[in-house]
Amino acid sequence: MDPLLHIVKIGGKLINDKNALSHFLDVFTELQGPKLLIHGGGRKATELSALLGIETKIIDGRRITDKETLEVAIMVYGGLINKQIVSQLQKRKINALGVCGADANLIRATKRPVGDIDYGFVGDITSVNAGILTQLLDQDIIPVLSPLSHDGNGQLLNTNADTIAAHSAIALSKNFQVKLSYCFEYPGVLYDIDTPELAMSSITINEYIEMKDAGSINSGMIPKLSNGFDALKGGVSKVTICGIDNLISQDRSTSLTL
Amino acid sequence: MDPLLHIVKIGGKLINDKNALSHFLDVFTELQGPKLLIHGGGRKATELSALLGIETKIIDGRRITDKETLEVAIMVYGGLINKQIVSQLQKRKINALGVCGADANLIRATKRPVGDIDYGFVGDITSVNAGILTQLLDQDIIPVLSPLSHDGNGQLLNTNADTIAAHSAIALSKNFQVKLSYCFEYPGVLYDIDTPELAMSSITINEYIEMKDAGSINSGMIPKLSNGFDALKGGVSKVTICGIDNLISQDRSTSLTL
Repeated sequence: MDPLLHIVKIGGKLINDKNALSHFLDVFTELQGPKLLIHGGGRKATELSALLGIETKIIDGRRITDKETLEVAIMVYGGLINKQIVSQLQKRKINALGVCGADANLIRATKRPVGDIDYGFVGDITSVNAGILTQLLDQDIIPVLSPLSHDGNGQLLNTNADTIAAHSAIALSKNFQVKLSYCFEYPGVLYDIDTPELAMSSITINEYIEMKDAGSINSGMIPKLSNGFDALKGGVSKVTICGIDNLISQDRSTSLTL
Repeated sequence: MDPLLHIVKIGGKLINDKNALSHFLDVFTELQGPKLLIHGGGRKATELSALLGIETKIIDGRRITDKETLEVAIMVYGGLINKQIVSQLQKRKINALGVCGADANLIRATKRPVGDIDYGFVGDITSVNAGILTQLLDQDIIPVLSPLSHDGNGQLLNTNADTIAAHSAIALSKNFQVKLSYCFEYPGVLYDIDTPELAMSSITINEYIEMKDAGSINSGMIPKLSNGFDALKGGVSKVTICGIDNLISQDRSTSLTL
C-alpha cells in the first residue's frame, strides 16, 4: 500500500489570527509522517492594497487580479505569509520549504479566459508536478505552498488555495494514500452557524448539491466542498473539513463521500 | 575532481532595470552545468517603504532593519523579486526554485549584536546547508536565493546578498569546484569610473587593502571584494567581478587572487 500523506489547507481567517496560526502550526507539527501545507491569503493583501491605494475589486465573491493586485499577492502570499510560516515551522524543527507554483515548475496554469467577467491574472490549474513534490517529501522536506501558479511563459497567476489543495492531492495520489484536510475556524460543516459545536459527520455529493441549490451553504464553504469532491473523484483517499483541534483526531469533523 | 558549480550574484542595479535583468537571465540560462543564483534587493524595497510611510534609515551605507522594514524586505526580496526571477527562468526552461534562508533551513544566522549601531533584524551567517543545496542541484533544480536568513527560532533576518554568495560558495566547495561571479553593471573592477571599458584583470588581497585604505575603491565594491576574498580563503576555486556580457567568457573581468 502507498504511504500515507497528509495534505492540509489552512484558510485566511486562521492566518489573520496570530494565536490561531501559532496553535495550528503546533498541531501541524504533531501530525506524523509526510505532510504538505497549503495556505490561503488572508486580510493582509487587502490591507496592503488599501495602504498602496490599490482598489480591491470583488465580483461574485471573487477577487479581480489586475497587475497591481497580482504584485501585492506575490509579495504577501509568496513572500510574507509563506516565509513567516516556514520560519515558524523551522522553529518547531519541521524542515519546511516554502514555494509558489512557479518554483520547480510545481503548478502550471492558464490565465482564466475572459468571459462575462475579466478576472485578470487568475490561473486555472493544468498540472501539478507530483514528481518534484514526492522527491522533496522523500528527503523529509515539508513543502509549504502559497496560492500562486505560473503559465510557463513568465507570468505568475493568482490561484485559489482550495483548488491548489485538491489538484495537489489528486496528483500525489499516484504515489501516496492522500488524506486532504480543509482546516478552518469551525470543527466541520455546521448545520447552523449559531450552533458551532454541532458539525455534520459526513456529507455526500448529492446532499451538497441539494444544500447548495437551496442556498443553505455558507459561500465560504462552497470552494472547499466543491474542490473536496473533485479531489475524491480524482482518487484522493479521504477528504475532510475540520478545525485545528480535530485536525489529528478528526473527531466531529465532516467527511466528504461521493 | 569535483564537478564545476557556477554561483552568480546579481546586484540591485541590474534588478532595477527590467531590460538588464532580462538580458542577464538570458545569459545565465546559457551558463552550462549546475548553477545557483543569488539576488540582491534593488530599489523596490525603498520605493515600497516610502509608499507605506516607513522611513529608510541608512547608517554608514547600511540599512537599518526595523520590524516594518523587515516585512518589506520579506515581501520584496523573498516574494516579488524572487518569484519574478523564478518565473522568468522557468520561461527559459531553467528549473529554478526560489528560496530564502529559512526554507529547508538553508541559511542560519544570528541577529547582529547591538554595538554602537543597532542594525535591527540583520543576520550574521553562521551556517549554510550545503547538503540540501547539493541534493537540489543533483535533481537539476537551480536554486535562486533571496537575501534573507533565519535564526532557527522563528525570526527571519535581512542579510547581505554578497555575504550569502560567499558563504554559500564556501559551503558548496566541499562538493563542487566552485566559480563565484559577482555580476554587476560594469565588466570588472574599474581603474576609473570615467573609463568603464578598462577593468583590472586581477586584484590581490594586498592591492585591495591598499586601495581601500587610500579611499580609492567605490563603496559599492567593498562588500563584493571583501566577501570575494573571504570566499577564496574558504576554498572557493575562483572569484571574479564581472558584467553580464562577460559572465560566460570572463573576458575583461577582474579575477581575485590571495
